[in-house]
Amino acid sequence: MSATSLNTVPFVSVDHMMKLVLEIGIEPFLKGLAERIEADFRRWPQFDKRERVPCHSAEGVIELMPTSDGTLYGFKYVNGHPKNMKEGRQTVTGFGVLADVHNGYPLMFSEMTLLTALRTAATSAVAAKHLARKNARTMAIIGNGAQSEFQAMAFKALMGIDHLRLYDIDPVATEKCRQNLSGFGFTITACKTAEEAVEGADIITTVTADKRYATILNDNMAGPGVHINAVGGDSPGKTELSRDILLRSDIFVEYPPQTRIEGEIQQLDADAPVTELWQVIAGEAEGRKSERAITLFDSVGFATEDFSALAYVYDLARKTGHYVDLDMVADPDEPRDLFGMLLRADKTLKAA
Amino acid sequence: MSATSLNTVPFVSVDHMMKLVLEIGIEPFLKGLAERIEADFRRWPQFDKRERVPCHSAEGVIELMPTSDGTLYGFKYVNGHPKNMKEGRQTVTGFGVLADVHNGYPLMFSEMTLLTALRTAATSAVAAKHLARKNARTMAIIGNGAQSEFQAMAFKALMGIDHLRLYDIDPVATEKCRQNLSGFGFTITACKTAEEAVEGADIITTVTADKRYATILNDNMAGPGVHINAVGGDSPGKTELSRDILLRSDIFVEYPPQTRIEGEIQQLDADAPVTELWQVIAGEAEGRKSERAITLFDSVGFATEDFSALAYVYDLARKTGHYVDLDMVADPDEPRDLFGMLLRADKTLKAA
Repeated sequence: MSATSLNTVPFVSVDHMMKLVLEIGIEPFLKGLAERIEADFRRWPQFDKRERVPCHSAEGVIELMPTSDGTLYGFKYVNGHPKNMKEGRQTVTGFGVLADVHNGYPLMFSEMTLLTALRTAATSAVAAKHLARKNARTMAIIGNGAQSEFQAMAFKALMGIDHLRLYDIDPVATEKCRQNLSGFGFTITACKTAEEAVEGADIITTVTADKRYATILNDNMAGPGVHINAVGGDSPGKTELSRDILLRSDIFVEYPPQTRIEGEIQQLDADAPVTELWQVIAGEAEGRKSERAITLFDSVGFATEDFSALAYVYDLARKTGHYVDLDMVADPDEPRDLFGMLLRADKTLKAA
Repeated sequence: MSATSLNTVPFVSVDHMMKLVLEIGIEPFLKGLAERIEADFRRWPQFDKRERVPCHSAEGVIELMPTSDGTLYGFKYVNGHPKNMKEGRQTVTGFGVLADVHNGYPLMFSEMTLLTALRTAATSAVAAKHLARKNARTMAIIGNGAQSEFQAMAFKALMGIDHLRLYDIDPVATEKCRQNLSGFGFTITACKTAEEAVEGADIITTVTADKRYATILNDNMAGPGVHINAVGGDSPGKTELSRDILLRSDIFVEYPPQTRIEGEIQQLDADAPVTELWQVIAGEAEGRKSERAITLFDSVGFATEDFSALAYVYDLARKTGHYVDLDMVADPDEPRDLFGMLLRADKTLKAA
């Protein structure tokens, strides 16, 4: 990432991202990412925030998620197409850009399919660190798709979770999750029902992918003291929890205007009380009120988390060298001479 | 652009874009682009439209401009930083993505600094084709920066403009513009004042870059029958024309909610009458009412024009081969096995 060439922008490909994460180590990477996300939540008022900018279709949604802290600007492009899996494609893919607010030039272009999975898991673990019971060891994961292992690893790295209870409507997904996590020191129980999975769980993570109102978690499945990490319900019409659970829970959200549209709380009145996660992290609001309280992190994913992830990867890419420079910005010798640059290219081509 | 590899996305770099434009030819490229822009204006109601999504700072603005026709989705990232020039950078740079609405996957990633200059010029020429007097031959260009030559070439390609009267506050810019255009069959007059430049002009193009209210064109400079192509005023607080000219003109705009914030008409009341350009193109509204009317295209640039440009380049890139494939989308063998892909990469790296 040379500072002298104005026209090139470092690009972190999928291959680079994998190498970068593996060089740092999955758990250390998640820990560092969680620290960055937590630090940015702590300075929440500094960010320029808005709901994501969606383009809905019958099959799914494409979203842009921009934010800025006044010095850096970041945005993510992300899609959500539940039926993609049947065509051999990812349900969620993404890429993003970090830019310099001072001159508007991009600083880095990065894949964000892997990075979104990592940042979503790291954010969940940051929330649980502040909301779950301190002695939590066992987590149920309902929905064992692409996001499930990342959740497990982040909760291990931040919370010391080492017992997993897995359930998916498709046993093949559960087996894939179990096998992928087999070398990381978890005690894993594959369960036949969601009811079985939540037995004895301190934390319940729901991370299913259907784009519809579904009830993955019934009211009787949320016992006293549990922390619910609701990750899968993240667009209008897509929820995972019974409304009754919401009424019994202390609810924590990222950015209320967005979560009221997309989160579990779209099932509640528009003025239903919620606490902003950043306030808990910054010490401005109470998190867990008692050992018997049910806490719920109604996660939908917010732009600041992607910003944190991009800034984190920007530092690591420079350290590790896992990127390639792209010829992305036109850079004539004289800035006003864009057309002249084109003419000179013509001469060069004709001379060649 | 192979259809079989789900993980790669064609990338059109600045170098590719120059080669692509030069292979097609600058005028034919602009003509084809204008046809595409015009065709998309004609089916305007099919597009999902919104004001651009800005992030303002003291030095400039970073904007995202998304739109979709229900089949394709496109967005542009663009900055506007007037002071960049002094640091040897472009005032406006950009890049964009075309994606498939059906599955949310990106189809193409492209530089858009050059492409924005081309599409802005093509849009101006499309508007003038419908609004200027048919016998127009002479155009004044006030502001001879990066956009000026593109405007001249597009007006030549679409309107047969072959007389140019150039003025810039900096004579060096005028000389640069004159030299760059010297081989294209124009009769060019370099002028010492804006007043001199507009003498006898059928079309006046204003394309200056200052981020402030300025009066490039005074009331007495707009004679009967002239078409004004106001390109430079494109953000809150940045205008180029005297309010009195606006009051004497028939005003045509791209997307009223955006133009009322950013265009020359921010100087008028919020309900001042304007005509949408697409309606003129689609035959639903009158354009020029008489030979003596003053028509004004209050151009700020709209997302559909970038969409048209991306779709146009997507076709041409496949035809010419001027692109490279980027490893931009994570593509595990089994879509739910993103984590497994990471683990397998680890094995491969350790075996190597």
